[in-house]
Amino acid sequence: MPRFFKLTVAYDGTNYSGWQVQPEQRTIQGELQSAIRRATKHEVAVIGSGRTDAGVHAIGQVASIKLPEWTAGTIALTKAINSRLPETISVLRVDEAPDDFHAIRDAIGKRYRYQLQVRGNHCPFEHRYRWRLRRAVDIDAMQQAAERIVGEKDFASFQSAGADRKTTVRDVRACDVIVQNADPERFHVAIEVESNGFLYNMVRNIVGTVVEVGFGKQPPEWIDEVISAQNRIHAGQTAPPQGLFLLRVDYDPM
Amino acid sequence: MPRFFKLTVAYDGTNYSGWQVQPEQRTIQGELQSAIRRATKHEVAVIGSGRTDAGVHAIGQVASIKLPEWTAGTIALTKAINSRLPETISVLRVDEAPDDFHAIRDAIGKRYRYQLQVRGNHCPFEHRYRWRLRRAVDIDAMQQAAERIVGEKDFASFQSAGADRKTTVRDVRACDVIVQNADPERFHVAIEVESNGFLYNMVRNIVGTVVEVGFGKQPPEWIDEVISAQNRIHAGQTAPPQGLFLLRVDYDPM
Repeated sequence: MPRFFKLTVAYDGTNYSGWQVQPEQRTIQGELQSAIRRATKHEVAVIGSGRTDAGVHAIGQVASIKLPEWTAGTIALTKAINSRLPETISVLRVDEAPDDFHAIRDAIGKRYRYQLQVRGNHCPFEHRYRWRLRRAVDIDAMQQAAERIVGEKDFASFQSAGADRKTTVRDVRACDVIVQNADPERFHVAIEVESNGFLYNMVRNIVGTVVEVGFGKQPPEWIDEVISAQNRIHAGQTAPPQGLFLLRVDYDPM
Repeated sequence: MPRFFKLTVAYDGTNYSGWQVQPEQRTIQGELQSAIRRATKHEVAVIGSGRTDAGVHAIGQVASIKLPEWTAGTIALTKAINSRLPETISVLRVDEAPDDFHAIRDAIGKRYRYQLQVRGNHCPFEHRYRWRLRRAVDIDAMQQAAERIVGEKDFASFQSAGADRKTTVRDVRACDVIVQNADPERFHVAIEVESNGFLYNMVRNIVGTVVEVGFGKQPPEWIDEVISAQNRIHAGQTAPPQGLFLLRVDYDPM
């Protein structure tokens, strides 16, 4: 008899063409479906809470699957899948789920982290996981800018073309600028954004905009103008993919 | 006219066959020599302070080079080399050096760090940089064991076969067990060893031995017996290469 599972998955997105299966490309979804097929002898669709782009990472992506049958427990299923995955993808946990659980529709919020390196040398260990800025930034100004992102607003100015939605209004519950390491040789900063939902490239566009304030090119108040303009052109550049991590996806308790 | 330079180099050793040039293999020394040849139009030998094995990383490896000529400064040389290196190797700095500077002979000490992950899931971001232990460890016991490594002693029991030296006596100035992150989901520990010199695989053999004490298989006092035995068989296993980082190499001020 069929069983439904919620998977929590981490992955290093560097050498993949993103989450979604594409012909002739290595994708996270493709690797998971392949590993589950070999682990369970069943062909299943892995439904992710959302797609991540090429080069984007996840610490807590969530996906749902329906297995026609599985006679063992969730820990056995976790191990069976993990033993068939490459080292860059890991199923952190598997939970039994109700038969109506849907990873996309049931999500009530997500949190992303975007990692920056401020000046310093190219680092062979961090370059896959950070955007290295060549100039210093004003952290206070960035924090002031970030505060102006918080709230239920129309984020049309932060939506990249290519995935229009019915509405561009989202409820951003947090936009935090965090100093991870203040060592001048390894000055690491993260911007974390939590929202009920995200537009296409919304976090990367917010980051590019906040960084522009950090560079002193615009004052923190400029964020309000960008939001009001309702036009992508007014916001900053899209930050590169490698700094972005999907931290977690929230659901009502099952 | 010839100029002599001291290079400080960082690298992620994961996808290389170690430091030293070998036919048909990608090596750190090989990539550096190739980048310097293309940057300066001169074929030079890059003399490293020591060799690192396949999979071993460096944060502060030192190498010496002699350029038949270079008319610009050290920062220009740094940029010229870095622009031709893969992303996994980076020259952190270049210093002008005296004509008798030799990266191996002039070294007065080195410090290595070995990184562990204690229990928890396979992590797609850390697996290249840590040895994941499947059992809990007693950190106090490991620190007591590490204290017994410190001092001028004959470390023959910690020398792997394949690179015998005239003498196996070394002066270990520090052997520290450091909790990097106490989060039970991401329990990260490092063992740092500083010595005037190292035998082949000495740090990895010390780590394997200290971890055995951490697992409770042996008491901290066992370290003294291992040292006295003067025989590799009595020590613990050789820890895998991916946890090891050459942190820095020390020289008398030039």
